[in-house]
Amino acid sequence: MMKEENNLNKKAVILLSGGLDSTTVISIAKEKGFELYALSFRYGQRNNSELEFAKQTAKKNNVKQHKIVDIDLGLFGGSALTDDIPVPKNDGNSVKENEIPVTYVPARNLIFLSLGLAWAEVIGAYDIFIGVNAIDFSGYPDCRPEFINSFQKTANLATKAGLGNKKFKIHTPLINLTKSDIIKKGVELKVDYKNTVTCYDPSNEGLACGKCDSCILRRNGFRDAGVPDPTRYVGN
Amino acid sequence: MMKEENNLNKKAVILLSGGLDSTTVISIAKEKGFELYALSFRYGQRNNSELEFAKQTAKKNNVKQHKIVDIDLGLFGGSALTDDIPVPKNDGNSVKENEIPVTYVPARNLIFLSLGLAWAEVIGAYDIFIGVNAIDFSGYPDCRPEFINSFQKTANLATKAGLGNKKFKIHTPLINLTKSDIIKKGVELKVDYKNTVTCYDPSNEGLACGKCDSCILRRNGFRDAGVPDPTRYVGN
Repeated sequence: MMKEENNLNKKAVILLSGGLDSTTVISIAKEKGFELYALSFRYGQRNNSELEFAKQTAKKNNVKQHKIVDIDLGLFGGSALTDDIPVPKNDGNSVKENEIPVTYVPARNLIFLSLGLAWAEVIGAYDIFIGVNAIDFSGYPDCRPEFINSFQKTANLATKAGLGNKKFKIHTPLINLTKSDIIKKGVELKVDYKNTVTCYDPSNEGLACGKCDSCILRRNGFRDAGVPDPTRYVGN
Repeated sequence: MMKEENNLNKKAVILLSGGLDSTTVISIAKEKGFELYALSFRYGQRNNSELEFAKQTAKKNNVKQHKIVDIDLGLFGGSALTDDIPVPKNDGNSVKENEIPVTYVPARNLIFLSLGLAWAEVIGAYDIFIGVNAIDFSGYPDCRPEFINSFQKTANLATKAGLGNKKFKIHTPLINLTKSDIIKKGVELKVDYKNTVTCYDPSNEGLACGKCDSCILRRNGFRDAGVPDPTRYVGN
């Protein structure tokens, strides 16, 4: 990995939810040689096991620091992920196209990236990694490249560090990958997907529902990658 | 005020710190006819009396709702406003130019605007007011028009609401005013500046130090506006 040598001793902030995508991203950032600073959020999400997996993953990747920020987005309401709105289930095979689902959390990636930027500026990092994906995704506007590009520009105007010669870069290594390509990449990097959670609405025991959009994308991803799905589903 | 009639029944989110600028801004938004939703932050700032004034101001302006978000920016460190770094004092007459002071809080306005945007999207507001000022300010990068313009663009790409025909607008009615013009405008709108706090480093009794950049800009503003300064300073 000679080509990545120039990243050695460079710090990067990695947004780490404990899901399949961000767990793959932290391995990619590690492979690229960055010194890792993992950032997670307790934002009122239903799924608390996410954060436990995020802690394990941070440790496993020998991060320099892992911070968990408390920010109650449930205060505003408006999302099935933080409210009592039911998470939609479907036939278990496909995800509805062209419709932003009720699991959308208003401005979530913008808020998370802004907080990641604040930490990056404090520690002197210019590289921020986020696991957004614009292929096998749920149609969230804040997963699109045009949002990421615009945020990167804004980040460099918002900060003292951005005024200098070095500029902030938002890395989105998964943005153009299918879910199965993400899984293949992760398997190559020895990611243990048993320790990731994706389900929007897991059981009290932490089992995945198998029927929400997120479960379906994940399940189809393992199938298409030809990789055994280690997820524990309700009723299996 | 016929020209403002088209804002009647339009909701606006107002970022309200309890300082001189944001207290003026909420009166301006009210004058324009908006239905007011005030948003404040408990972010680890030294100055807690700010939030008490914010509550009073919200009430006085008959806001529809006032929310206070807890977000501990002190977790990241890096600022005299949230850390144990001393707030710089000077000769009491002028503010150093061309230098971003240690009172800068990394990415603060970006984080606050992002949270304001989240709330706006949930309540169906497209107008967000912030009291940034690029004239008599401390050189913070996130008070400049180029930052605000870039944020506005990003906001419309980050959200479900921004995909539609209506677009988010970030209002910065103070951006090109001097401190004394802001005070004159506020006096015209019957703002009671006694109930605002500006000092970066007040005494335990809530008295202003009179020597930090923020106190100096405020004091000079009242002087230049020819308005009696209602601030209670240490030793006065």
